[in-house]
This record gives sequence, C-alpha cells and structure tokens, in this order.
Amino acid sequence: MQEKNYAVVGLGRFGSSVATTLYREGNEVLAIDIHESLIEELVDQVSHTVIADSTDEEALKAIGIRNFDTVIVAIGDDIQASILTVLILKELGINQVVAKALNKRHAQVLYKIGADMVVFPERDMGERIAHHLMSPNVLNFLKLDHDYSVEEIKVPRCMVNLNLREIDLRVKYNLNVIAIRTGEEIDISPNPAKVLGAGDVLVVVGANRDLDKFTDLT
Amino acid sequence: MQEKNYAVVGLGRFGSSVATTLYREGNEVLAIDIHESLIEELVDQVSHTVIADSTDEEALKAIGIRNFDTVIVAIGDDIQASILTVLILKELGINQVVAKALNKRHAQVLYKIGADMVVFPERDMGERIAHHLMSPNVLNFLKLDHDYSVEEIKVPRCMVNLNLREIDLRVKYNLNVIAIRTGEEIDISPNPAKVLGAGDVLVVVGANRDLDKFTDLT
Ligand SMILES: Nc1ncnc2c1ncn2[C@@H]1O[C@H](COP(=O)(O)OP(=O)(O)OP(=O)(O)O)[C@@H](O)[C@H]1O
Ligand SMILES: Nc1ncnc2c1ncn2[C@@H]1O[C@H](COP(=O)(O)OP(=O)(O)OP(=O)(O)O)[C@@H](O)[C@H]1O
Ligand SMILES: [Ca+2]
Ligand SMILES: [Ca+2]
Ligand SMILES: [Ca+2]
Ligand SMILES: [Ca+2]
Repeated sequence: MQEKNYAVVGLGRFGSSVATTLYREGNEVLAIDIHESLIEELVDQVSHTVIADSTDEEALKAIGIRNFDTVIVAIGDDIQASILTVLILKELGINQVVAKALNKRHAQVLYKIGADMVVFPERDMGERIAHHLMSPNVLNFLKLDHDYSVEEIKVPRCMVNLNLREIDLRVKYNLNVIAIRTGEEIDISPNPAKVLGAGDVLVVVGANRDLDKFTDLT
Repeated sequence: MQEKNYAVVGLGRFGSSVATTLYREGNEVLAIDIHESLIEELVDQVSHTVIADSTDEEALKAIGIRNFDTVIVAIGDDIQASILTVLILKELGINQVVAKALNKRHAQVLYKIGADMVVFPERDMGERIAHHLMSPNVLNFLKLDHDYSVEEIKVPRCMVNLNLREIDLRVKYNLNVIAIRTGEEIDISPNPAKVLGAGDVLVVVGANRDLDKFTDLT
C-alpha cells in the first residue's frame, strides 16, 4: 500500500468516515468543509483541516488542491455545489475525483463532467441491510457477480456436532466451505474432520440459489 | 427465504433503498414518511405508503404498525424523532426494531431504549470506499475478522499468462484462491492449470498482511 495524499470535501457522516479511515491507515488527508463545527471535530483525526467553500475556485487553488492526486467530494444534499465542485476539480487537473451522488440523475451529470468514480453509500448499505434482514443466518456477504456470492452463515442447528465430511456441503448443496469462524478464531481451509459447534460461522462460496437453500435451514 | 412484513420509517436515501430492496425480493413493505414528496416517488416500489409522523403513537397504532414483525427506523438528522420512534415501537411490542444512528452516542441511546440492531450506513460505506481508494487492485472485499479477509483482486501484470500452479499463491503468499472471474464468467474452485488473463479477477482468502503484500504487486 503506497501512502498517498487525499483531500475530502464535505465532512458529513460519509465524508468524515472516508477522511478518518484514510488517515488512520497512514495517508496524508486534508479535510475541507464550509462549516466550522464539523471541521473542529476532526482536527485530531486528519492531517489538516480547512474551512472553505469548494465551489470557490480561487479558494481551492489557495489551499493548494492541485497537489492532491485524489479528491473525494462528499457533499450530499446540495446537488449544485457537488456538481460545481467536481467540475472545478477536474478543470484544475485533479487526477482522480470521487463523488457521492444523491440519485441516478445526479450520478449521470457527475460522470459527464468528468468524475472518475461515483458512489451511492446509503443506497448500497440499504441493500446490504435489507439482505441481512431477509436472511438473518447470513451475517455478511460478498457478491462475486449476479449469481455467485461468498457468505458468512451461522451453522444451522441441524448440523451442530457434525463434522465437515458429514455435512458434505460440496455434494449436498454444491457449496465450498472456505473457512470456519469459532469465537475469535478463524480456520482457513479447515480439516474435513472438523466438528461444528453451535455459534460457529461457515464462510461459504457458491451460487446464490444454492446459498439460499442452505441459509433457509435452521 | 420466508417472506415477511416490514415497515420502514423515513424514506431518505437509506430508508428508501431498504424498503425497495425488501419489496423487490418479494416481501410486504409499508413505507412511512412525514413528508409527502418522498412517499410519492415510492408508490410503485413498495406495497403500501403512508404519510405519518412516527413520533405520534396514535398515528402508528392507527396504521396497524403492531402487525409488523420488523420495523426499520431510517430517520437521520432528527435524533430526537429517531429516539422517540424507537421507544414507541418497542413499547408497542414490535419484535425487531432496526435503527440508523448518526453517531456512537446516538447508537448507545438507541440500544438502551430497546433497539435490536443499530446501523451506521455512511460510516461503514466510507470505510469501504477508503479501502478501495488505497488498494485500487482490490475491487471488493469481505472482512472475516480483524485479521482475515476475502478480496477480489485484479490479476497483477506480472502474473498474466501464468497458470495457478505457476503463481502458487498458497506457498508464495499464503493465500487461497477461491474463484476466478473472467469477464462475466465465474469459475469456482478453478483448475490448477487455469491460465490467468489480463483483466481477470482472483477471489482470494487469507490474512490481511499477506493480502496487502499481494495487492501491492502490479
Ligand atoms: N460548497 C461546499 N463546500 C464545502 N463543504 C460543503 C459545501 N456544501 C456542503 N458542504 C458540506 O458537505 C457536508 C455534507 O453535506 P450534507 O450533510 O448535505 O450531505 P449528506 O449526504 O446528508 O451527508 P452524510 O454523509 O452525513 O449522509 C456538510 O458538512 C456540508 O457542510
Ligand atoms: N417523525 C418522523 N416521522 C416520519 N418520517 C420522518 C420523521 N422525521 C424525519 N422523517 C423522515 O426521515 C427521512 C430521512 O431523514 P433525513 O433526510 O434527515 O436522514 P438522512 O440520514 O440524511 O437520510 P439519508 O438516508 O438520505 O442519508 C426524511 O425523508 C424525513 O422526512
Ligand atoms: Ca441469500
Ligand atoms: Ca442528510
Ligand atoms: Ca446520509
Ligand atoms: Ca488490504
């Protein structure tokens, strides 16, 4: 991981999370907001803070924004300010501009004016939480494509005290077990003789159709 | 997946994403907001819509909120309304109340008054995006615990045209290859003779330390 310089514009919940995560991982982070109060909360959690209006091109130049390779625009409700900010940043030659969008129309405009990546944090997390509510046995998941996923699944009651060979997910459910979590311990490529305990979590890869069949067991 | 009844209070970006995802997957979804405009946009994407103030206990009773097993409270900025809504819902006997929190303090209060699950959509997605920016070769990931993850990693240039046996991630990086994505195709537990192409994506499990070493290759 090469440490880089990042600037984050807009320090709402999303922007401040991006900024503090990047800083915690050893990067140089400049945090910018038009309001003082949010800036103050972050002083110790980023490299530098500036109060500025990002729709003011001169202000951005004065900050030295052109020294930053990547700028994240996390302005949420003020679509006009978000668009204008991205436009100015691309005109100033920023290599990578990432912007948060309110909706699809907003995203289209952002791409058109040069945004390199557009994100929908609330929409994406809403989908994740909805899936978790529908399948409470699935603690977390990674979609590999439309049809395949990796899922963390609580061991169903009917399989407690059996070993991996006995439950034979490969043949019976067409699923591969990647790992087993027991309390704080993770066992990567576990032994077939491994006995499952109540509360253990299986990390499993396969087709969503097959995963659904397995996660409906209790 | 058993279809269930859900009510969602607060139809901002997060709430509307939860509501429409649950509905698309075949569940009964009641969407509630104090403002008419957001309700109107969702009419065709949920089962029922109601304009109501969720801090008004009588209004919630009149809607028949007690028939819902799970209610998601996605009120964001008005902390007081969020807390009062959760309090009323738990008093009315709702089995599962999920609430969105603005910050840790807010979350503590929500748990204390009975929330069953508290979520931080912007914070969580901010962390994900930050990780993606730091490791652009990592397209997506699933944290298994503090030290282990599953990651989708672009094949590094130095490994293009080699097969899995040749790159031998197991021995050289202490990583297990779970799957390979080539264009739209996913190959689960690929053959060791499989040759990697430029643009292929490896799905790999291992320690973060080892994953970092591998994702720094280009
Ligand atoms: N022109 C601007 N220049 C700098 N910062 C701005 C500008 N306009 C808005 N902001 C800041 O952007 C931040 C995020 O905006 P807002 O709260 O509207 O977004 P949000 O999407 O609701 O945020 P969250 O990430 O909390 O969901 C706010 O702190 C706001 O002060
Ligand atoms: N008492 C209430 N009863 C019903 N709905 C409410 C109440 N208070 C707020 N809401 C609704 O909750 C929704 C979300 O609130 P708000 O926009 O403040 O949250 P947010 O966290 O910024 O949203 P987003 O999910 O877009 O990030 C709004 O549509 C608002 O009208
Ligand atoms: Ca599923
Ligand atoms: Ca907001
Ligand atoms: Ca938000
Ligand atoms: Ca990493």
